[in-house]
Amino acid sequence: MTTVFYGSRAWGLFHRASSSSSSRVWTHPPFVGLSPGRGLSRPPPCRAAHSGVRRLPFATLSQQDRDFFQTLLPGRALTDPEVLEASNVDWLKSVRGSSELLLRPRTTEEVSQILRYCNARGLAVTPQGGNTGLVGGSVPVFDEIILSTALLNQVLSFDVVSGILTCQAGCVLEALSSFVGEQDFVMPLDLGAKGSCHIGGNVATNAGGLRLLRYGPLRGTVLGLEVVLADGTVLDSQAPLRKDNTGYDLKQLFIGSEGTLGVVTAVSILCPRKPSAVNLAFLGCATFPQVLETFQLCRGMLGEVLSAFEFLDSACMKLVQDHLKLTNPIKESPFYILIETSGSSAAHDEEKLHRFLQEVMTSSLVADGTVATEDSKIKALWALRERITEALTHDGCVYKYDLSLPVQHIYQLVEDMQEHLGTRAKNVVGYGHLGDGNLHLNITSPSHDPALLAAIEPYVYEWTARHHGSISAEHGLGLKKRNYVHFSKPAPALRLMWQIKSLLDPRGILNPYKTLPDRASTD
Amino acid sequence: MTTVFYGSRAWGLFHRASSSSSSRVWTHPPFVGLSPGRGLSRPPPCRAAHSGVRRLPFATLSQQDRDFFQTLLPGRALTDPEVLEASNVDWLKSVRGSSELLLRPRTTEEVSQILRYCNARGLAVTPQGGNTGLVGGSVPVFDEIILSTALLNQVLSFDVVSGILTCQAGCVLEALSSFVGEQDFVMPLDLGAKGSCHIGGNVATNAGGLRLLRYGPLRGTVLGLEVVLADGTVLDSQAPLRKDNTGYDLKQLFIGSEGTLGVVTAVSILCPRKPSAVNLAFLGCATFPQVLETFQLCRGMLGEVLSAFEFLDSACMKLVQDHLKLTNPIKESPFYILIETSGSSAAHDEEKLHRFLQEVMTSSLVADGTVATEDSKIKALWALRERITEALTHDGCVYKYDLSLPVQHIYQLVEDMQEHLGTRAKNVVGYGHLGDGNLHLNITSPSHDPALLAAIEPYVYEWTARHHGSISAEHGLGLKKRNYVHFSKPAPALRLMWQIKSLLDPRGILNPYKTLPDRASTD
Repeated sequence: MTTVFYGSRAWGLFHRASSSSSSRVWTHPPFVGLSPGRGLSRPPPCRAAHSGVRRLPFATLSQQDRDFFQTLLPGRALTDPEVLEASNVDWLKSVRGSSELLLRPRTTEEVSQILRYCNARGLAVTPQGGNTGLVGGSVPVFDEIILSTALLNQVLSFDVVSGILTCQAGCVLEALSSFVGEQDFVMPLDLGAKGSCHIGGNVATNAGGLRLLRYGPLRGTVLGLEVVLADGTVLDSQAPLRKDNTGYDLKQLFIGSEGTLGVVTAVSILCPRKPSAVNLAFLGCATFPQVLETFQLCRGMLGEVLSAFEFLDSACMKLVQDHLKLTNPIKESPFYILIETSGSSAAHDEEKLHRFLQEVMTSSLVADGTVATEDSKIKALWALRERITEALTHDGCVYKYDLSLPVQHIYQLVEDMQEHLGTRAKNVVGYGHLGDGNLHLNITSPSHDPALLAAIEPYVYEWTARHHGSISAEHGLGLKKRNYVHFSKPAPALRLMWQIKSLLDPRGILNPYKTLPDRASTD
Repeated sequence: MTTVFYGSRAWGLFHRASSSSSSRVWTHPPFVGLSPGRGLSRPPPCRAAHSGVRRLPFATLSQQDRDFFQTLLPGRALTDPEVLEASNVDWLKSVRGSSELLLRPRTTEEVSQILRYCNARGLAVTPQGGNTGLVGGSVPVFDEIILSTALLNQVLSFDVVSGILTCQAGCVLEALSSFVGEQDFVMPLDLGAKGSCHIGGNVATNAGGLRLLRYGPLRGTVLGLEVVLADGTVLDSQAPLRKDNTGYDLKQLFIGSEGTLGVVTAVSILCPRKPSAVNLAFLGCATFPQVLETFQLCRGMLGEVLSAFEFLDSACMKLVQDHLKLTNPIKESPFYILIETSGSSAAHDEEKLHRFLQEVMTSSLVADGTVATEDSKIKALWALRERITEALTHDGCVYKYDLSLPVQHIYQLVEDMQEHLGTRAKNVVGYGHLGDGNLHLNITSPSHDPALLAAIEPYVYEWTARHHGSISAEHGLGLKKRNYVHFSKPAPALRLMWQIKSLLDPRGILNPYKTLPDRASTD
């Protein structure tokens, strides 16, 4: 076993092994600042967005409509097909719509006027943030108008006493992280797509990500929202207050509703203080039960400084090695764990981590490992986990599943799926947020393979339902998963979802074909 | 200045001063296991529940109805007026209803049958947990049937890997705390009423309490709910999963809806690991700006181990001294702060606390203080803060306000109110969860005094609205605050609240006269 050390000067081991990739660390998706769909070559789309979906009888765009929007948003009502291409295709290039109009409002009032007009005319609208979603929720399916939040990008206020940030919905997560970071705070969420994703999109999809284990879900940290409803009504619940029990918490309806109930235009969010010390341990385990045992021990011994517990299997490691030329800093293992601590005292945290590492090594739970405390090295280790999604896009057509399961069963699904598919799949890999019981199961194939897909679905959903899991832990339902929601939600809940949709968006203009299952399947 | 020490053996100072009260530590409300309204003498009710409210045209209870419920719940459909008395009056004895029937179902199916029947008959129902609410939300206003969750008191499951507890709604919070405590976990919420309040009631009122600063609100820690809707439909979203993004998060509608949208029958909640070390510091400050500065410093220096930051003014201290014979363990000060740390390493936490205390003493932010690490001493210090509510009930008729404000303005309201009321009030006191920006403003008077009330309201709400606060931080709206909600929520939000109420409870049978403002005031 390779010796493991912790502490700020114990980097040698990893440094040597990873030097080839250390200058290439970037955030996923890698086209930060570029238009989505460009900057990287990826496989062709697996399917058209509308395959199997029938266009609803919305109005079609007339010259009069175009004139209205050109007048309302001079120079910001875009119709150039080349410009629209990037917004018509999702990041995975897995679904493609055919919108002919992209609107870029700057103010809530403009969003309100857009929706009031569209609602009156019966024109369908797809709200779009950074377009980094993985379930086809942020692109049009047919000719829906794309309402981009890209220019709603102003910070409105930040209170250094309470840590409450209020900003427009189109602020990019990474920009917000830098902004609050300068004032000694952090955003309560972090995810691979931080360089492109918008905070409004994060809220609309109830994004989870890498810090949920520590700071909890957005349902707790989002304090207020400004939302424009389908008819143009502005619903303001932006109170930058930590507690507010004045009636129903309406903003919760919009968190995770994927733009189907209203367009988020501004967000108030509670930022924790920036931890002054961060450590990262990257460990190898021989079996999955050892991964679980390490997790249990870790929660007890690292307690309040534990900020992430992620895992990947050896197949994921091979993918980032093969496709992205990243280097495995430790001995080859069937499973890898990434443990992050964040705290207010470097000495205390290192002592806790040291005791924990001693314990897992002497008890042989962990076969090998390395630790980083320097920022650049921490980023390089994180890249092994964060860039798996990107590596997968180079492996062919990807079938992605984002499942919540009782943590005991989380890897059993990967093994069962491997056995179930045999040689039909190119790769069946598992990774994810173990600390949250969240598995990312990914299956690749050289090209779109309907027979393979038929072998995966509904098998994967039935398996998940049988083990009392959720068929979407954090990615949402979007276009791709919506008709499988009955595996996770009972009929009365689906009926209520539709009733709420009808209440808030009676003409159904907001992000149609997303989130809600076809009505037939709820009856 | 009295010397301040920290650490497990530095208790002497406080011990000497508080020994007279140390055997009397109990939880508020003090009638644990007794019927509410008994066990303590308190002032007579300030007003009848229905003053100023007109009974809606619900059906009245017939002999046939009584027979139905006696058959459905043999021995658990209670009509004895003496038994009903405790459930007709709230804990503060501030409002009183006149229900003639108290139902005590044991199962979700029984709750479903009760509501289906009541909905069909047009009989109004008031769900009731521990009846410890402070806004008149948990007692009937007229003759509503009381649906008690007291016998829905079973733990359904607890997963020691994930810390997820699933239980029926009538489990008492303190009993749950003991239960998960035995397995090395804690409940993510704690409040003075823990000895009586039910977890279902906590959820229905979105209770805040003493641990919110550390573990966040129930909107993040409640993972699933089972709710019975007005028509008897059972809505099951009990998935004991940390993440679930399969469509609208319907359970959020019921968190904080005060029983007006459905009856919570079971709860899944995420319990954090029990901290192995707890310290409590009780400090005195000369001015409120010093309290704020201490808070800022504390957040930075105690970081992740800070679990509570509470404050009380000298008038509160006088009340617990005069009415409950508690002893102030430190030198008299205009303001007192209670700081709790909870962590996984006693040595680390004590070191952090020590450094912090050194800093606040050398910078003269704090005038005096004491620290406790032993459980009994910690409880005695907490009693000074937790028993203020109880002490107030001995001071006469209490007008209670629970406000969220930007933390900078939090005490200015108390001072302005003192000046505004002058000698008309007996006492105007302020205390609360400073870390959450939550002020409990309480005004006492020898007896109910309409002129005093007219001087307080709407002044207090207008002041709060002017400073962008919330008129109910954690107590909810209930009967007492509902018609002031427009000070915190704009008209479109109130309209949407009514639309949701109409959708889920079209006949309006669930907890009428609560939470929602009179319709006239929303138009």
